[in-house]
Amino acid sequence: MNSVVVGIDLGGTNVKTAVVARNGRMRGKDSRPSRADDGLDAVVDTMVASVEQALENAGADPSDMLAVGVGAPGPMNWRTGIVFSPPNLPGWKDVPLADIMSELLMVPAYVDNDANVACWGEFWSGAGTEVDSMVCLTLGTGVGGGIVVDGRLVRGIDGTAAEIGHLNVMRDGRQCNCGAKGCLECYASVSGMERTALEGIEAGRPTILTEMCGGDLDKIDGKMISDALQKGDEFAAWVMTETGIWLGTGIGSLINLLNPEMVVLCGGMIAAGEALFRPVRETAQAQSFDVPGARAQIVPAGLGPDSGVIGAAGCALQRFEEEN
Amino acid sequence: MNSVVVGIDLGGTNVKTAVVARNGRMRGKDSRPSRADDGLDAVVDTMVASVEQALENAGADPSDMLAVGVGAPGPMNWRTGIVFSPPNLPGWKDVPLADIMSELLMVPAYVDNDANVACWGEFWSGAGTEVDSMVCLTLGTGVGGGIVVDGRLVRGIDGTAAEIGHLNVMRDGRQCNCGAKGCLECYASVSGMERTALEGIEAGRPTILTEMCGGDLDKIDGKMISDALQKGDEFAAWVMTETGIWLGTGIGSLINLLNPEMVVLCGGMIAAGEALFRPVRETAQAQSFDVPGARAQIVPAGLGPDSGVIGAAGCALQRFEEEN
Repeated sequence: MNSVVVGIDLGGTNVKTAVVARNGRMRGKDSRPSRADDGLDAVVDTMVASVEQALENAGADPSDMLAVGVGAPGPMNWRTGIVFSPPNLPGWKDVPLADIMSELLMVPAYVDNDANVACWGEFWSGAGTEVDSMVCLTLGTGVGGGIVVDGRLVRGIDGTAAEIGHLNVMRDGRQCNCGAKGCLECYASVSGMERTALEGIEAGRPTILTEMCGGDLDKIDGKMISDALQKGDEFAAWVMTETGIWLGTGIGSLINLLNPEMVVLCGGMIAAGEALFRPVRETAQAQSFDVPGARAQIVPAGLGPDSGVIGAAGCALQRFEEEN
Repeated sequence: MNSVVVGIDLGGTNVKTAVVARNGRMRGKDSRPSRADDGLDAVVDTMVASVEQALENAGADPSDMLAVGVGAPGPMNWRTGIVFSPPNLPGWKDVPLADIMSELLMVPAYVDNDANVACWGEFWSGAGTEVDSMVCLTLGTGVGGGIVVDGRLVRGIDGTAAEIGHLNVMRDGRQCNCGAKGCLECYASVSGMERTALEGIEAGRPTILTEMCGGDLDKIDGKMISDALQKGDEFAAWVMTETGIWLGTGIGSLINLLNPEMVVLCGGMIAAGEALFRPVRETAQAQSFDVPGARAQIVPAGLGPDSGVIGAAGCALQRFEEEN
């Protein structure tokens, strides 16, 4: 067996693990509940067990492991591998996660921001394998981001760069969890889309969503909007278009700013397909200069839900190779 | 005499030239009208004469020149040194400016975007000499930009990156010359500031500007707003604050996106001092995350009006050294 690198996608709900060859191909994987509510030790136990299972599924031996990489929710210090206190990992405070994983698995371990590793996964082994510069947006509850310039992640002096969800797209706009107003994330995430739907319904626009949620508007979520869209609901189509326009606005700014070869969209929301991508592309092009606007391909993730877990392995491999 | 590099700041109104030592210190300079209305040949003659005069002023010989760099208005191809058709250089179309200057001056010549060279000047020899990453905004009729990450200009695949003036800060906002709506440049440039003043006056807000312009609102320009501010006009102070808020909004986005060590503001507008910088800093901090917001120093240009001309020399030196 050739040497492999292991990637872990650490979320508040699930831990996903992949065993990846040096060429970026996945050899085996595992996924299990994180047990985040049981605290740090339970999560660490889960990660170790998941790595062992993924190695077995790949037909690999622990001694084949070169390194392990974890994509974790921020805030964190990616250089030291210390995770501060992510909202969805209760009880975590300044956890030296890289050191813990390195000691337990007896290989070098690296920790990176989850949106950065998803970007790196797409760059290394997904939609972006043919390009040198790209921007990646992860559309979930929030909007995460990653930026690659000249083949390297843009991390920033404190490692906090690429917070694409916190581009300001509307002065005095919606209140964001980050404290600012009008962030892209307030409009272009799944929760932003839900907010757009709620505002529309409260303004009296007709939609089958009112019926679908049984009158309880709080039950309206991304899945329900997507179902309404499938059923031909015009309002749901409008909500998706609005979301795409906001997203395209932010992407237009990124194109003017970075002139990348590619913009990759990740996350469950991209399943909406052209209903989302059409307004995104139209708006991004209208809002950017001709040359960079025509250059930047706006495409869905090539690795589907595995951008993060493969990218965690890829980031670890790159850092391991730079150190050795 | 040690070897020197020559920088030219090519504008529609003036040609400025500087003779710069390899350590970034200016040894001599020249400035003269561009003669842009007389067409390409007149401008080229002006540039050559200005180089000769600047060399003489520096006590240098043409044989001391290592290379020459030109900061030119876009659009252009920085790699080939071809300038397409800048609006303020009438009659120019696909001009191989690097080749022309190289042939006439008998040294390697390089052409770069004027906002990028200003950024590089500040990075190489101005406010940013102690940092590795910075963003530079040039506030004039428009808003130009430059981005340095890990000690290198971010140019983008087509060389069009760092169009900071065309970050979208307001969906369906003011119409921009670029065709899009709501670009930062429509609010945070000198002409954006004039537009804010006009809109305020038309909405009936009292100001001594109405008197100062003799009733002809078209005469209100940045200088007049600045004069009114000096005279204690509250409306002029509000216009400056508004301009600063818009600028700070864009800078907040850049801080979240790039986590730079420094943000440098260039251009005549920075003479407004704290009246501009206070709202810029307050807004940028409110609109960005704590860590990168506290990190990024927002400072005026260290080279005053010479960022561009020194940066043109610096860009040429760097490119010359990479080639040789």
